Amino acid sequence: MRGTRLDTARIRAARRVIDPVFLDTPLYRCEALEPRLGCTVSIKLETANPVRSFKARGTEVVASRLAEGGAAAVVCASAGNLGQALAWSGRVRGLDVTVVASRFATVAKLDRIRALGARLELVDGDHEMARERAAAIARRDGIRLVEDSLDIETCEGAATIGLELVGTAPSFDTVLIALGGGALATGVGHVVKALAPGVEVICVQPLGAPAMTRSWREGRVVITDSADTIADGVAGRCPVPAVLDDLLLVADDAVLVREESIMAGMRMLLHHAGLVVEPSAALGIAAVLEDRGRFAGRHVVTIVCGSNVDVDAYHRWVGAAALHGS
Amino acid sequence: MRGTRLDTARIRAARRVIDPVFLDTPLYRCEALEPRLGCTVSIKLETANPVRSFKARGTEVVASRLAEGGAAAVVCASAGNLGQALAWSGRVRGLDVTVVASRFATVAKLDRIRALGARLELVDGDHEMARERAAAIARRDGIRLVEDSLDIETCEGAATIGLELVGTAPSFDTVLIALGGGALATGVGHVVKALAPGVEVICVQPLGAPAMTRSWREGRVVITDSADTIADGVAGRCPVPAVLDDLLLVADDAVLVREESIMAGMRMLLHHAGLVVEPSAALGIAAVLEDRGRFAGRHVVTIVCGSNVDVDAYHRWVGAAALHGS
Repeated sequence: MRGTRLDTARIRAARRVIDPVFLDTPLYRCEALEPRLGCTVSIKLETANPVRSFKARGTEVVASRLAEGGAAAVVCASAGNLGQALAWSGRVRGLDVTVVASRFATVAKLDRIRALGARLELVDGDHEMARERAAAIARRDGIRLVEDSLDIETCEGAATIGLELVGTAPSFDTVLIALGGGALATGVGHVVKALAPGVEVICVQPLGAPAMTRSWREGRVVITDSADTIADGVAGRCPVPAVLDDLLLVADDAVLVREESIMAGMRMLLHHAGLVVEPSAALGIAAVLEDRGRFAGRHVVTIVCGSNVDVDAYHRWVGAAALHGS
Repeated sequence: MRGTRLDTARIRAARRVIDPVFLDTPLYRCEALEPRLGCTVSIKLETANPVRSFKARGTEVVASRLAEGGAAAVVCASAGNLGQALAWSGRVRGLDVTVVASRFATVAKLDRIRALGARLELVDGDHEMARERAAAIARRDGIRLVEDSLDIETCEGAATIGLELVGTAPSFDTVLIALGGGALATGVGHVVKALAPGVEVICVQPLGAPAMTRSWREGRVVITDSADTIADGVAGRCPVPAVLDDLLLVADDAVLVREESIMAGMRMLLHHAGLVVEPSAALGIAAVLEDRGRFAGRHVVTIVCGSNVDVDAYHRWVGAAALHGS
């Protein structure tokens, strides 16, 4: 794959610095979902690890390079999963980790960031405000700012999922990828387009947080005024130009889904796959639910990218219907 | 390890006939559980595969040997997970699979057995009656009867989990194993005692279905009149003598836990690990909850052996407390 900021050889090299506990995650067909979705469905499960999301693939790359370079501290803004992952990767390597998050972030994520020994600073605003504050801390303290999706290590880490998909899956037609900042989509998309170019790369974002999808459609950065979705992990408003450029090269489509479809996807994954997932991880199933005809008879892989939820909110989302089949 | 019916070289060979989708399952530390349990906890997750339990490790060995030998059909009795796994393994190899189960078995398990193309026959009694009926079918049709835990392939398949534990875990002190018929306990126990003899092997069974534990304690087969537990996967009454003999060689202890502890374990795994598990898979956590002092400061691995639940029952078990933290 030419043109993106990513490089397949560097992605292969990234695998070697990532703790194996985050690699070679389960990839399996889930037939119980199929009658309801009308297509063959495989799950790539990124939740069965110490931070319950794929983000540590990237922070392992970041932290190992920082530690090699003798750095002592690092800061990032996070909706919660990147922060947990950076806290984990930094702790292993003796790095002093600061995470800036919105005070409206998922409480379970914030609790885990603290429990992993990171310094947590909350801002009274959204994720974009947290990004500004993290950048200010980095300038003040002269330490590395990790910017999710912009920093190439975060994309390379996510891209290792792509290597596992093309290396071990029976042939599949489509990969459905949650779209937020774009590290997961551009990383996996790069590898898929480089090594299995016949596979369709479809990014999925909530209607309530459509900035990157609109940007992809218009071919230029579109900033939205607000982000309103339960899918906290993908609720950005300000796409990064360099990431959009990559996404334009690797995505075959970017679709928007309703909140009800995300909840229906979470419910289906609970009932028929036995999986607790956070909203962002149900985006792929939501996309199929909203357009069954498009996927009919095809083999889709959906990346279940995280499972960090506040249990109360989760029960509300999967709802009373949880008691009566889906 | 000398003396058991198992052989480590044969277990290594078994790995080669098991579909990789069932092997090399996640093994990771779950720190969020630790403050509540007072020990270091690692999870070996056997649910992220097409049948949502470890049983396919064994049925893959059975079915591949049957197919090699030219067999066309096979029958087993099952509480549900073995039947699903045999249906899956048999379907791949063109075997005609019959599963006999109690009509009181978990509906989700029975549905999956049918969906996987097996013939399902229900008996109006418990698992022991299903075993008798399966044996009668095997005699009548002249086909192979798969007897869980008695048939060495089922133990060898389960034992491959042991190879993964001793091969990849940071050193741990104790492995907690759900005890039912005994395939999992004798299989994993054999490998652990052979390759990591310092690790303690503790089997866990419900107080309401204590036949094998009592047998282990008395050193002779003890048959119980009834089995009354939500942990349907381990609810046998009639231990197999040869399996008991093996268990006597590999288990350091066998403990019984209350139903409330099993439900508390399921709730903890949901809230703090994001895992939906069936009751049998929470036995290890239940054992720690009932005797925190025994495990204080130790590193325990618990095998999360299955996640096939009826969603309604699951919600009852994890209960209203699910809405208010654990």
